[in-house]
Amino acid sequence: MTDDIFARTRALFELPEGIVYLDGNSLGPLPRTVRERVLAEIDQGWGERLIRGWNERGWIDLQLDVGNRIARLIGAPEGSVVAADSTSVNLFKVLTAALGMAGDRKIVLSDSGNFPTDLYVAQGAVKALGQGHELKIVAPEEVEASITADVAVLMITQVDYRTGRLHDMAALTAKAHEQGVITIWDLCHSAGALPVDLAGCNVDFAIGCGYKYLNGGPGAPAFLYVRPDHADRVSPSLCGWMGHEAPFAFDLDYRPARGIDRMRVGTPAILSLAALHTALEVWDGVDMNALRRRSIVLSERFIKEVEARCPELELASPRDPSVRGSQVSFRFREGYAAMQALIAEGVIGDFRAPDIMRFGFTPLYISEADVVTAAQTLERIMRDRLWDRPEYRMRSKVT
Amino acid sequence: MTDDIFARTRALFELPEGIVYLDGNSLGPLPRTVRERVLAEIDQGWGERLIRGWNERGWIDLQLDVGNRIARLIGAPEGSVVAADSTSVNLFKVLTAALGMAGDRKIVLSDSGNFPTDLYVAQGAVKALGQGHELKIVAPEEVEASITADVAVLMITQVDYRTGRLHDMAALTAKAHEQGVITIWDLCHSAGALPVDLAGCNVDFAIGCGYKYLNGGPGAPAFLYVRPDHADRVSPSLCGWMGHEAPFAFDLDYRPARGIDRMRVGTPAILSLAALHTALEVWDGVDMNALRRRSIVLSERFIKEVEARCPELELASPRDPSVRGSQVSFRFREGYAAMQALIAEGVIGDFRAPDIMRFGFTPLYISEADVVTAAQTLERIMRDRLWDRPEYRMRSKVT
Repeated sequence: MTDDIFARTRALFELPEGIVYLDGNSLGPLPRTVRERVLAEIDQGWGERLIRGWNERGWIDLQLDVGNRIARLIGAPEGSVVAADSTSVNLFKVLTAALGMAGDRKIVLSDSGNFPTDLYVAQGAVKALGQGHELKIVAPEEVEASITADVAVLMITQVDYRTGRLHDMAALTAKAHEQGVITIWDLCHSAGALPVDLAGCNVDFAIGCGYKYLNGGPGAPAFLYVRPDHADRVSPSLCGWMGHEAPFAFDLDYRPARGIDRMRVGTPAILSLAALHTALEVWDGVDMNALRRRSIVLSERFIKEVEARCPELELASPRDPSVRGSQVSFRFREGYAAMQALIAEGVIGDFRAPDIMRFGFTPLYISEADVVTAAQTLERIMRDRLWDRPEYRMRSKVT
Repeated sequence: MTDDIFARTRALFELPEGIVYLDGNSLGPLPRTVRERVLAEIDQGWGERLIRGWNERGWIDLQLDVGNRIARLIGAPEGSVVAADSTSVNLFKVLTAALGMAGDRKIVLSDSGNFPTDLYVAQGAVKALGQGHELKIVAPEEVEASITADVAVLMITQVDYRTGRLHDMAALTAKAHEQGVITIWDLCHSAGALPVDLAGCNVDFAIGCGYKYLNGGPGAPAFLYVRPDHADRVSPSLCGWMGHEAPFAFDLDYRPARGIDRMRVGTPAILSLAALHTALEVWDGVDMNALRRRSIVLSERFIKEVEARCPELELASPRDPSVRGSQVSFRFREGYAAMQALIAEGVIGDFRAPDIMRFGFTPLYISEADVVTAAQTLERIMRDRLWDRPEYRMRSKVT
């Protein structure tokens, strides 16, 4: 019974009754221990210890403590990951750091399957640096051939947010290094979704988010990784006191801290960071290879069930699970309304423009029974054309 | 009885028994209603509504809602302030935006009394832009004379974090505009501390922090202000999806949102942001001019009491309250150890290198009786040379 593998971890989450939650790739559910931890930081920390909490409750080290918990999930050594800011801000930090190491090369190579904010960040950075830098966007399948010796930085999201298509981190990083190209991997849909081996792949920089598969809560702090041999050499454009060698010396000149500490900038949001810190405890004892096997079982089952029941839907994800992340997407011309109908019926996925219905399979709390329920519900939506109801066509701000 | 003015607001805070808290300029205490709000976001938001919380609990608009609550305290119109990121990151955003408007001018003018992270951010930005930009740091008293027609941006913190010395926002901004200089004011020690009139002074940009006088909690999100007539024209270097005109269209190209929205970047940390949102309710009905009068009463009284009792201490703050913020600092060669002794005796202030003992007077919850207790305790520390004990000399990470 493969379901049993994750029966233990499922019990660690608060999951609303009667809901099948296939949107943990957008916002992970609430781990049960988070409530108590955040309350402790509010009451015993902020309330009772006040400013003393920075020392006495370890707030000053929390960014690195959280980083170390994430490091284990992404194949990064201790002390090479820090939790900070948002994914976008972290990308700006590592991208400007990488371009600073790239000498005369000016091209940032990315692909059209990247999450748009990454492209926006790169557009802003390239414009700011303004020294002939350019962002080159190719189709995902053209990335490998486009890694040439004039490229400064390869900036790639491993798992396509729409289709779940998985880039080959080892192969692309190796090709990049052959060509003298610095690599930045966005792990937003990888960290906690599948085994990642940053050190084994020799990746230069990585970033990712805390609120998807890491279950850190809405807008949880993001993380970033710097390869240890780069860490003392990089010079990001975003420099703040938390990244100073001696923040409380209050020197007028910036002297970067040693190692990953220099990638810190401002004062971190402790309540949100503490929630993420505790949320990461659900990963204790989880084998990422077992997680991956289970993720494939769940997603293969979903594809099979949906294709048998809903001929209107077209698989948008790769059929080969070895090149697919932990999500499955289907195209349907009325995908937005169909997803609203599905949510109203208790199965929560999400929609990505223009026509993608997206379902995340997070083995820590999704069972095969959930998968079947989801497919059955989707079949009913299609059969009864529930997506045709006007109430499901009204767009919300967040889709 | 001037104390009575703020008896109402004092009751809104959780203040530990037996503590006189004169460090609200470093971390404001816990407003009583925050606990319930954060729990609601955890339980009814994240736990029950999951991803639907972004629409149903208004998370997507929370940065602007918080901004509007702050706007009232700093003389800014509705819709001109957004809560986001850290102060350092916000400064990077407005500084790069301002330099983008400055044409051929390349000089960022600041002063040596500025909080160091502001100088670090400027050093990073100037280096990144790398087109002849430079950061010019003068003494605080030389700022006015240094505002000349070759300066691009005047970047000033209104209240000196060490001494409490207050810059004249109206005069310096007027002089800057006469010379065609764009102004950025850092309000970290101003917002919630004294009346600020951004609109009346015609300030171009402002930033500030949420965790000091605004009582938003440890590392609370910061804020930024853009003068409304600039808001649709500025082009910050840090561009992310939350600042896009249509974040959920997932376009490959960045198109900035209208107005202050474009200063958003990544996904905001909702638990911390919600805490700040609720914390700001304590300001309902508070008259900032009354607050200022009260702040001066408290700080004048403290200076008088300390100078009468502790001849070893030398006033580091301006004696004239009209050019002083809501804090009072004294120099003492053993200031670090003396502050540790004072904290051990229940009076919490803080220390700033090399020799500054700093005391914040936050009228929302500090009474004249607190002020007298603090001075009496300090007298005892000095008289009994408690600062000479070895346990008070051991430095913590956060001072």
